[in-house]
Amino acid sequence: MKVISTINLKELIDELANQYPEHQFIQREGFDRLTDEDIQTMEVIITYDSKLNKTIINKAKNLKWIAWYAAGVNKLPLSLINDKGIILTNARGVHKIQISEYIFSYIMTDYKNVISYYELQQEKGYKTKIRQKELFEQTITFIGTGEIPQYAAHIAKAFGMKVIGLNTDGRGITGFDEVYAINDREKAFAQSDIIVNVLPETEKTIDLLTIEDFQAMGEDALFINVGRGTVTKEEVLIKVLQDKVIRKACLDVYYNEPLEPTNSLYALDNVIMTPHITGNSVHYNRRATEIFKKNLSVGIENEADFVNKVDVSKGY
Amino acid sequence: MKVISTINLKELIDELANQYPEHQFIQREGFDRLTDEDIQTMEVIITYDSKLNKTIINKAKNLKWIAWYAAGVNKLPLSLINDKGIILTNARGVHKIQISEYIFSYIMTDYKNVISYYELQQEKGYKTKIRQKELFEQTITFIGTGEIPQYAAHIAKAFGMKVIGLNTDGRGITGFDEVYAINDREKAFAQSDIIVNVLPETEKTIDLLTIEDFQAMGEDALFINVGRGTVTKEEVLIKVLQDKVIRKACLDVYYNEPLEPTNSLYALDNVIMTPHITGNSVHYNRRATEIFKKNLSVGIENEADFVNKVDVSKGY
Repeated sequence: MKVISTINLKELIDELANQYPEHQFIQREGFDRLTDEDIQTMEVIITYDSKLNKTIINKAKNLKWIAWYAAGVNKLPLSLINDKGIILTNARGVHKIQISEYIFSYIMTDYKNVISYYELQQEKGYKTKIRQKELFEQTITFIGTGEIPQYAAHIAKAFGMKVIGLNTDGRGITGFDEVYAINDREKAFAQSDIIVNVLPETEKTIDLLTIEDFQAMGEDALFINVGRGTVTKEEVLIKVLQDKVIRKACLDVYYNEPLEPTNSLYALDNVIMTPHITGNSVHYNRRATEIFKKNLSVGIENEADFVNKVDVSKGY
Repeated sequence: MKVISTINLKELIDELANQYPEHQFIQREGFDRLTDEDIQTMEVIITYDSKLNKTIINKAKNLKWIAWYAAGVNKLPLSLINDKGIILTNARGVHKIQISEYIFSYIMTDYKNVISYYELQQEKGYKTKIRQKELFEQTITFIGTGEIPQYAAHIAKAFGMKVIGLNTDGRGITGFDEVYAINDREKAFAQSDIIVNVLPETEKTIDLLTIEDFQAMGEDALFINVGRGTVTKEEVLIKVLQDKVIRKACLDVYYNEPLEPTNSLYALDNVIMTPHITGNSVHYNRRATEIFKKNLSVGIENEADFVNKVDVSKGY
């Protein structure tokens, strides 16, 4: 098969060529470098570029498999992909380590007054009256109980935290002290110090969290969003932060990305913001390529045995 | 017994009075509020104030027990305390949670580029090319294998790290993947990404780490000191940071405290500094008082059964 990667896979592209001599691997650095011939002849595309739109897919007559090197597929033209019978795999599972670690980076930044001490250092000050909060015996709720929250839950337990999960039906999941159904989420929020959204974007998760949810979290709560920004309307988020309905938010994802410099979130004094980077890792491409190799070895004729296959009708 | 606390124990002083009606508890906010009569009549002092010097101890004719609410006793006149047969207990164990948590706060601040992203947020920027390092599969060495490193080791394992400990004879300790003798420390340093000093100050630990130690750690190493600043000469520390013998240091303790604003450490671009606060916690006094109560219940006539008794001849 002719496999084109729009991601700069560096040494990994040669490793693929050596390991699978029966396939052809072509590296194009960036989507804009794809020629018309590339698009018309490629059978597999390795990419995470949302320029992979309806026009391209209609042009790509030979495309059989999209190896999407990101997790969220919400920006892809899923119904067209479904109609054309193109296989879609994603990089689910490649993010659990780095996103979990970043969740604790946010918590530390807040709980341990990292920015205040950084500013104190700039001032060459030696004030010692700031008191740090502890993670120990705090309660953390993960909205979602998939791979990322399971990995993060394990770390939270090591810090001595109580760990709650939320999923569709409230079924118990190993590693969580309690699990509630998403519809009973206010019971979890009411007892939580930290609430972490890890949900992907689907029809059911868009605008899920309302002002009542934040009221249930309460004025001491830290809300962390490493899932998708659409889980709560931006005006709701801004209002609950402005009115101190919750104490603070750590945000990596936004309703509209990239975030505009004029966005009102920047004016708030109780938000820590990063530009959709918690999934990044120096090990990212290698891990995603391991998944790709697994499927390439299985072969598209056995696509039922693929790992990380996206159910295009459900969107995850 | 007449017990005087120079620490503001707030509600805890009343709890003590209620729980131990056979003893008298007096609160003096700060050492300078002690009257001559206080000093001459007190039998127990609860304090962490280094103003408890030889003059005071000589004046305190009835003093039988110093309940030192800090861990390090290096500033106390130990030989005089020894000569007078005064019992000395410390707050060892009260620090393990907060110091361990802060170790990971330092690591996150460095590995996850917290300050760079904070500055990006201030600039309303949305640059996404910074790549975060991962704790996963990194190697961390703790200089010391006592309560704090044991607790921290458990968290490090949850992050998927390899954990090495150093102690006097290299005896194995549960929770560490490997333990080396302190004299073989270069073997540990050479394979470590992160090195954390947790040693107290004793005759054996002063100026322990030399330039050769930092050379063994190497140019990618992160050095964290939450033990005592005297573990390495300040000029050595400044030199290895200036010359990038190691990559970065996170320091909570210093050779001379409080640190002067003129200190050369402030001029370095590869150091994260906090003002001796990693042991602080909102739960500190309560935890230290639990230890004090345990011993008060045992009674000084049974001092051999005291917990947290300092061996005054050894200094820890």
